[in-house]
Amino acid sequence: MTVDAKILSALRAAPIGISGTELSRKLNMTRAGVWAHIEDLRALGYDIEASPHLGYRLLGAPDLLHADDLVARMGKVRVIGREIHVFQETTSTNDVVARLARGGAKEGAVVFAESQTKGRGRLGRKWISPAGKGLWFTVLLRPDCPPQGATQLTVAAATALARAVTLQTGIVPEIKWPNDILIRRRKIAGILTEMRAELDRVQEVLLGIGMDVNLEASDFPENLRRTATSLRIETGQKVNRAELAVTILRELDRDYQMVMEGHFEQLAEQWEERCTTLGSQVTIRFGQRVLRGRAESLDSDGALLIRGLHGHLERIVGGDVTMEPG
Amino acid sequence: MTVDAKILSALRAAPIGISGTELSRKLNMTRAGVWAHIEDLRALGYDIEASPHLGYRLLGAPDLLHADDLVARMGKVRVIGREIHVFQETTSTNDVVARLARGGAKEGAVVFAESQTKGRGRLGRKWISPAGKGLWFTVLLRPDCPPQGATQLTVAAATALARAVTLQTGIVPEIKWPNDILIRRRKIAGILTEMRAELDRVQEVLLGIGMDVNLEASDFPENLRRTATSLRIETGQKVNRAELAVTILRELDRDYQMVMEGHFEQLAEQWEERCTTLGSQVTIRFGQRVLRGRAESLDSDGALLIRGLHGHLERIVGGDVTMEPG
Repeated sequence: MTVDAKILSALRAAPIGISGTELSRKLNMTRAGVWAHIEDLRALGYDIEASPHLGYRLLGAPDLLHADDLVARMGKVRVIGREIHVFQETTSTNDVVARLARGGAKEGAVVFAESQTKGRGRLGRKWISPAGKGLWFTVLLRPDCPPQGATQLTVAAATALARAVTLQTGIVPEIKWPNDILIRRRKIAGILTEMRAELDRVQEVLLGIGMDVNLEASDFPENLRRTATSLRIETGQKVNRAELAVTILRELDRDYQMVMEGHFEQLAEQWEERCTTLGSQVTIRFGQRVLRGRAESLDSDGALLIRGLHGHLERIVGGDVTMEPG
Repeated sequence: MTVDAKILSALRAAPIGISGTELSRKLNMTRAGVWAHIEDLRALGYDIEASPHLGYRLLGAPDLLHADDLVARMGKVRVIGREIHVFQETTSTNDVVARLARGGAKEGAVVFAESQTKGRGRLGRKWISPAGKGLWFTVLLRPDCPPQGATQLTVAAATALARAVTLQTGIVPEIKWPNDILIRRRKIAGILTEMRAELDRVQEVLLGIGMDVNLEASDFPENLRRTATSLRIETGQKVNRAELAVTILRELDRDYQMVMEGHFEQLAEQWEERCTTLGSQVTIRFGQRVLRGRAESLDSDGALLIRGLHGHLERIVGGDVTMEPG
């Protein structure tokens, strides 16, 4: 941990305050040195009170993603969030993580961007990512599984995102197979899973996640306003992004562990409870091909099982799914 | 094409010679300029005769991979070999192509290296790549297919490699599923297929190919001498690597076109004729799991169908295959 991360961690652990003497002892630096770091954090917008009696006390944190602060808040993690980077602007966080991965970044590394100039969703679609309004990030995983195994990770990520939204706002979102999180049938978050693989084994998976946190209606282009929403629009108030980010990473870490230990079935159950795709009549497009049928259940590897119009069952691992109103 | 590529192309098209005047006209440069380029090519080892009566004539080419020369020899190609790069030394040509791909290199770009410091085979194994002795290269493809489709490309590449060896040396090699080319049951070439993909579509495929061309027995580490061989060892003579490289790229281009146009079945037939895995008792290891059975046939997507000991059929897309002697 950096000095800033250690200071924030110590301040959060001492809600009634911590003396400058104790802080300088913990950090093994002079009181003047501590003071200089406190000033830096204040300049970033951290509201840190310094009183002769109570010492330093953290009264508020700014709505920005600060890698040191995220690391401090995460505390001990198993895999996801062991290493966190925050960029002010990138093309796409998946691109950044691909580069880091090639440079040997460890599994569980996470890259956030305050804004993306080329954020993308599935099927090459553009994902709007205005500065400071959402959580746009990518997690690097190196699971020991074949390429098909990546579908399980997408399902696990969807349940983790849904759970984190509930923990933070009380809202229980819906899941649309395979990668969308919806509130009142409007999209609030999406997952873009990309991988590097050999024919029979995954080398790395990039779990790219976009969540519309504090966007207002006017932040969405006209054509998305009926199909997309944000936590701010749904709850009527701003949501602390750093807190939400940490909650999501913890839930992701938990779900990833469950998948890797062979307990995908339990996640699949949670997923099925929240999935509005199941039981619906759906139309699925893959390039030229169109398939219609009833979404019946999730297969053990995360594929969707569709009962076609002629009664046969088809396994779907991708494509563009439209649910028919009903 | 560069000037050097144009000169080599013109020289190859005029086996009885081309006058300096005509060459300077074709290249739209002075005769002195042409002369300077001829001198450069000679310095690389090209044996170019200059006589007052016959003009310039190419008598011999050195055993080196020269990008301009490869481009000149390729002539018109559909996709594979439209862009060729040669490096004296790289970590692994797959790594170089991954970087080029991210920078927007076009489909069909090929990177050769005279030597690789971190050449690798399947399952993370080291691939020895001594300088100037083999063909170590990677082809960038961007097929419109799901991740499973990459197995077809590996099968297509194996048939192309086998055909190129026969064209160049007269030897008919065997194929071992999925990615090895053998002569007398010893490995002469291997294919490492890596991809970047979303869950349902491939973004790019890196077809990494290593062929042991002019290695001598002493070039192989002790532990590989019984299981690996080279064209030089098998034919008793040195093979011109540039000629072989061009033959391979042309065959790859042809096979890739066949797969993309939906004629995989025809390649699969060629493949099956040469495949010594089919009909054999095999043992396949995937991490901890071991499967034994008889390799029966190739599935329509390139997977291997194995009849297990209890009579059931299993589809295999990877793993480490050992054929039992018999």
